[in-house]
Amino acid sequence: MTNKIAATAAAAVLLLSSLASAQTFRRLGACPSLGCVLPPDQSDFLPGQLFDLRLEVHAPVNGSEAFNDGVPDEAFTVSIGKLGGGGEGGKREAGSAKKKSIAEFFGVDDEPELERWDFSWYEDLFAEDADTPSVVNVASRIYRGLALYEPGEYEVTLTYYGGETTTARWVVRPLATKKRAKNVILFIGDGMTTNMITAARLLGHSSINGKYQSTLQLDKFPVLGHQMTHSIDSFITDSANSASALYTGHKSTVNAMGVYVDSSPDHFDDPKVETLVEILVRVWDSAWGAVSTAALSDATPIALSGHSRSRYDYGSLVDQALNGVTNYTWTNQGGPDVWFGGGAEQFVPGPESYQSEDYYAKFAEAGYDISLNKTSLLELGNSSKALGVFCQSHMPVWLDRNVFTDNLASFENSPTGSDDSALDLPGLKEMTLKAIDILHERGGEDGFFLMSEAASIDKQMHTLDYDRALGDLLELDDTVRATLARLGALGALDDTLVLVTADHGHGFDVFGSADTQYLAAAGTDRQKRRAVGTYEKSGLSQYTQQLSSGADAAAISYGEGAHFPVDWEPRYAIAPGFGANPDRRENYRVHRSPRQPVSKGDNERGYVANAEDAPGGFVVNGTLPTTESTGVHSLTDVPVFARGPCQEDFGGVYGNVDIFYKMAACLGLGRPGPDGGKPGGDDSCDD
Amino acid sequence: MTNKIAATAAAAVLLLSSLASAQTFRRLGACPSLGCVLPPDQSDFLPGQLFDLRLEVHAPVNGSEAFNDGVPDEAFTVSIGKLGGGGEGGKREAGSAKKKSIAEFFGVDDEPELERWDFSWYEDLFAEDADTPSVVNVASRIYRGLALYEPGEYEVTLTYYGGETTTARWVVRPLATKKRAKNVILFIGDGMTTNMITAARLLGHSSINGKYQSTLQLDKFPVLGHQMTHSIDSFITDSANSASALYTGHKSTVNAMGVYVDSSPDHFDDPKVETLVEILVRVWDSAWGAVSTAALSDATPIALSGHSRSRYDYGSLVDQALNGVTNYTWTNQGGPDVWFGGGAEQFVPGPESYQSEDYYAKFAEAGYDISLNKTSLLELGNSSKALGVFCQSHMPVWLDRNVFTDNLASFENSPTGSDDSALDLPGLKEMTLKAIDILHERGGEDGFFLMSEAASIDKQMHTLDYDRALGDLLELDDTVRATLARLGALGALDDTLVLVTADHGHGFDVFGSADTQYLAAAGTDRQKRRAVGTYEKSGLSQYTQQLSSGADAAAISYGEGAHFPVDWEPRYAIAPGFGANPDRRENYRVHRSPRQPVSKGDNERGYVANAEDAPGGFVVNGTLPTTESTGVHSLTDVPVFARGPCQEDFGGVYGNVDIFYKMAACLGLGRPGPDGGKPGGDDSCDD
Repeated sequence: MTNKIAATAAAAVLLLSSLASAQTFRRLGACPSLGCVLPPDQSDFLPGQLFDLRLEVHAPVNGSEAFNDGVPDEAFTVSIGKLGGGGEGGKREAGSAKKKSIAEFFGVDDEPELERWDFSWYEDLFAEDADTPSVVNVASRIYRGLALYEPGEYEVTLTYYGGETTTARWVVRPLATKKRAKNVILFIGDGMTTNMITAARLLGHSSINGKYQSTLQLDKFPVLGHQMTHSIDSFITDSANSASALYTGHKSTVNAMGVYVDSSPDHFDDPKVETLVEILVRVWDSAWGAVSTAALSDATPIALSGHSRSRYDYGSLVDQALNGVTNYTWTNQGGPDVWFGGGAEQFVPGPESYQSEDYYAKFAEAGYDISLNKTSLLELGNSSKALGVFCQSHMPVWLDRNVFTDNLASFENSPTGSDDSALDLPGLKEMTLKAIDILHERGGEDGFFLMSEAASIDKQMHTLDYDRALGDLLELDDTVRATLARLGALGALDDTLVLVTADHGHGFDVFGSADTQYLAAAGTDRQKRRAVGTYEKSGLSQYTQQLSSGADAAAISYGEGAHFPVDWEPRYAIAPGFGANPDRRENYRVHRSPRQPVSKGDNERGYVANAEDAPGGFVVNGTLPTTESTGVHSLTDVPVFARGPCQEDFGGVYGNVDIFYKMAACLGLGRPGPDGGKPGGDDSCDD
Repeated sequence: MTNKIAATAAAAVLLLSSLASAQTFRRLGACPSLGCVLPPDQSDFLPGQLFDLRLEVHAPVNGSEAFNDGVPDEAFTVSIGKLGGGGEGGKREAGSAKKKSIAEFFGVDDEPELERWDFSWYEDLFAEDADTPSVVNVASRIYRGLALYEPGEYEVTLTYYGGETTTARWVVRPLATKKRAKNVILFIGDGMTTNMITAARLLGHSSINGKYQSTLQLDKFPVLGHQMTHSIDSFITDSANSASALYTGHKSTVNAMGVYVDSSPDHFDDPKVETLVEILVRVWDSAWGAVSTAALSDATPIALSGHSRSRYDYGSLVDQALNGVTNYTWTNQGGPDVWFGGGAEQFVPGPESYQSEDYYAKFAEAGYDISLNKTSLLELGNSSKALGVFCQSHMPVWLDRNVFTDNLASFENSPTGSDDSALDLPGLKEMTLKAIDILHERGGEDGFFLMSEAASIDKQMHTLDYDRALGDLLELDDTVRATLARLGALGALDDTLVLVTADHGHGFDVFGSADTQYLAAAGTDRQKRRAVGTYEKSGLSQYTQQLSSGADAAAISYGEGAHFPVDWEPRYAIAPGFGANPDRRENYRVHRSPRQPVSKGDNERGYVANAEDAPGGFVVNGTLPTTESTGVHSLTDVPVFARGPCQEDFGGVYGNVDIFYKMAACLGLGRPGPDGGKPGGDDSCDD
């Protein structure tokens, strides 16, 4: 480890010193010097995983890094070698690599063409305010469709400007070619933290004298881990590059998926990395699918098949899901066997579909059964590929589908693209169980991979609507419970690794209770704060009992068995806070309509607390830039719950990319050579 | 489970309905009806664990529960029976218990005397504002020094008011009498959450392209769990009853330890439960000790031996640590073998020591070597009992001892009681390593138990001084690392179960970075918020590199090896938020002196943001009652890291009391009968 740091630091020291004070605005995320190697230093690979290699040489025209009169070195060279002499088990010695050119090492016939472009960036907020961008000229080449097969450490060296070097150390993980789990189901509670799980349990499960009388399904998982979620170039991640890390074993940059972000203007020429489902189809021809309560084009589901610098290329990404990467030769995952969620905008022909085409028609042509509501979802057979799109945009949340059902009519979100409202909506549970039935049949002996996402834990935390977020977290838990039961009924429980994790967190925790009657009655904002009870005055959860008399008898009373609140609007409500938020109003009552915490003030003030939100509450000013209308993601490690084959690999603390390598090892996805032939190496799961 | 709920609910239904709307103010926490059984329903016991049984019958004089003209039933009766007919493995049937009187069941010779008292409480905030307390008359008896030996379920029934009943179901956990770990070291990061661990890692460890080049020692633990921290009667806990839950297997009420809280005025007559160290000394005659960066009389260290309703009985609790419980017959843990921390006030004769006595002298008389500074601590031999008291109040934190060392001189905290300043201070690491040396020698073949507490993670989070809290978290991690090395050197690593956990959390998370230069330069509070960078603008941690040029060259530069920040005051600092806080100012810079976030406004306004705090920052108003001067504890489950014998028992999610039962089972502390004789039952660790 120490050696690695020293070697890398030495290579970069010349140029680094001028950059260090401008870390949060960056010229190019994973490129700390004027020479860029993508995949960069510290990248890991699965044996046999496809990737592209992009080299860039930068010549800043102006700004603190101005260099060589803005003329990039076009005569850069690049070499690669395996440390320790190339043999497995060889001694690792820094710098001992026998270097070859990329063409020679990988057997590339034609050297790629030299590319040239320029881009600009701001060095810090002062520069942004003054509108003084720094311009950079670039020379670049990209090698496409490479793979490394032999486990071990590699060193890639870019040489430029007559002797400057940028070195990237790569690790090819141990080879595991044996399938230990036939199926993997990966549940992602988007934005879900341990703090939220704790709060959801408090709302959904009753306790007596401090002991819960029932618990979450998650609480029953035998193995628990924590994953670190940082992006490659920022310690706060978004859902695109964090999902991509889980699916590819490669960290990326905010908004990117399936690629390392280069500095060129084209969103679709960035160096790609192969995803889990692409490898799974290539190696085992397994079935795969995705279920989400978000739009199917949203980051978490689409990153399974998507390769783009921008998660906002919704239409193109949906086309990639169906047809694979079409602008370069690449593995094709063949299209999902099941794909259930929202986001009709990318299917109805029009401005938000790829090339304005009708993607319902395209999926139908490709042999998909198509469902637009819960009724037809449940009637689908299990032998055909299936597409289910149940509304425009993201799907209405559990609380609106089950408690405040009047809201549904106002959403004007028909999956046909009309402004009718989608009323016949499945929940995460129905979608997931149907997906399992289809994947189980279609995967057969080849097994399947399913990603099922509770997307609105995140989306509702963004709008500070924590009751809706926690409702969807309880729905996720209920879905996991039903999934284990269904796997049991199918005889697939022992063959299936079930993981439940998140992609990142939101700062959130409950710190007490609030007497909502007292809060409403108090006169001033400061007096209202007296309604909050901390420590012994936090009391016990009132969400799990239906009250029979008094003022509370009029409270909302809904429920769905033992695992959801009985009363969503008790007098003594939980009082939670956020790690960060725009200005907001708080009365700690459930929001009967989806929360809109801010409204737009004048330009100078930016977003301010919405005067209509949280009637009778008090104002809490935020800490976010006033241009920010919602809450934001946070730093915290997020939990990983594991059950099934390979569960023992998921204890302790590790990076988000390690989840990919653990899943891939459990599925035996590594390959020792380009023919996918007989494994030559270790086929254990120990990585 | 369902049966239990039904039975309990049925018993309580008559009286519960009138109480349900006043859950956060309670007549008596663990007593939902007018008859109280303490230990209450849902209590667990280790086989052979001593406890007292308190019965109370309440007659509210006024208020919503007014009953029987305020005359409590003095003719109440109580019975107990084992479910399933008394034989182990017998079928459990609700109500099948053959009931006996307490006297008969436990062989009590003399029925305890009837006691009478009254108390008052407020039913809610409106009642408190109007000063209309509810008064309750009480009749009570208490049976002292009982124990249950046979694993299984028991039912205790209190009958009163001519047929009303309160039923408590108890569970005696499985019998495990075999020692699987010779030693247990329990580290408690007070108030430490996963969110804080994530932030501390970011500050103390460097990463390249998203991959950490070193990690926390905690990250290397093989087993991870989560514990639920709720009190028996409030979902937010304090450090007294949460520590007590870890040490006794019994949840209690805020501020209480080693007892269930009754309603009598006497703090020291409440029904007790035996603690881990009391049992450990009784069963195995092992050595035990506590180390804390808090005052030794503070909740977390003192709850190992303390039995009081109030953690604020500091002097009495120190006397209990040395002499055991003296007002009733009880097991005596014999005094700690090592006791290192702060809190000289309870040792120097005076108003804060028990009966104004000199406890340095009393410990010396009992054979203790006494150390008052780091120099003499390191010179202590390993064969004698040792007391180390290094300052008054809580110990200065890592950041003040290592970075802002000028602060030490201002603290006027000499352990002699003078207003000199303690300058020769050990850290958690030095105290813990010395404690291990002594306990290893004194425990010998009988083994030892050590609790080591990083207390100021919590204390600094209370004052929102997150840099100081995270410094102490890194010190805890460094201490754990050094502990494993020391255990290895002593040949004790394989014999020692090492646990690292917390007692509760604080709402805290990092949501981005702040450009502290831009923030200082911006004019208005709203403009200053623009300095915050989220997502891709959060950038990378700057705490781990020393900058060589530019404005940052003048930044603070200190460090202690690879595991602490190199630069505590980078231009781009972390931007964290709190789940709840009083009004505060923020500039996101490290506080060069310990933070004082609030000052006292006039009575009506309560605490307001301290104008001297965070110069150049902006004001964030709080959500707490304005009578609250600090941050508060939060709901979140907290992590448990386990390594060593029995580590496999600590994965997954469980209650804080389960940690006691897991430790006790690993130490073989259960006993099948009052003679402590040969085990008659299962001696495995599976509970």
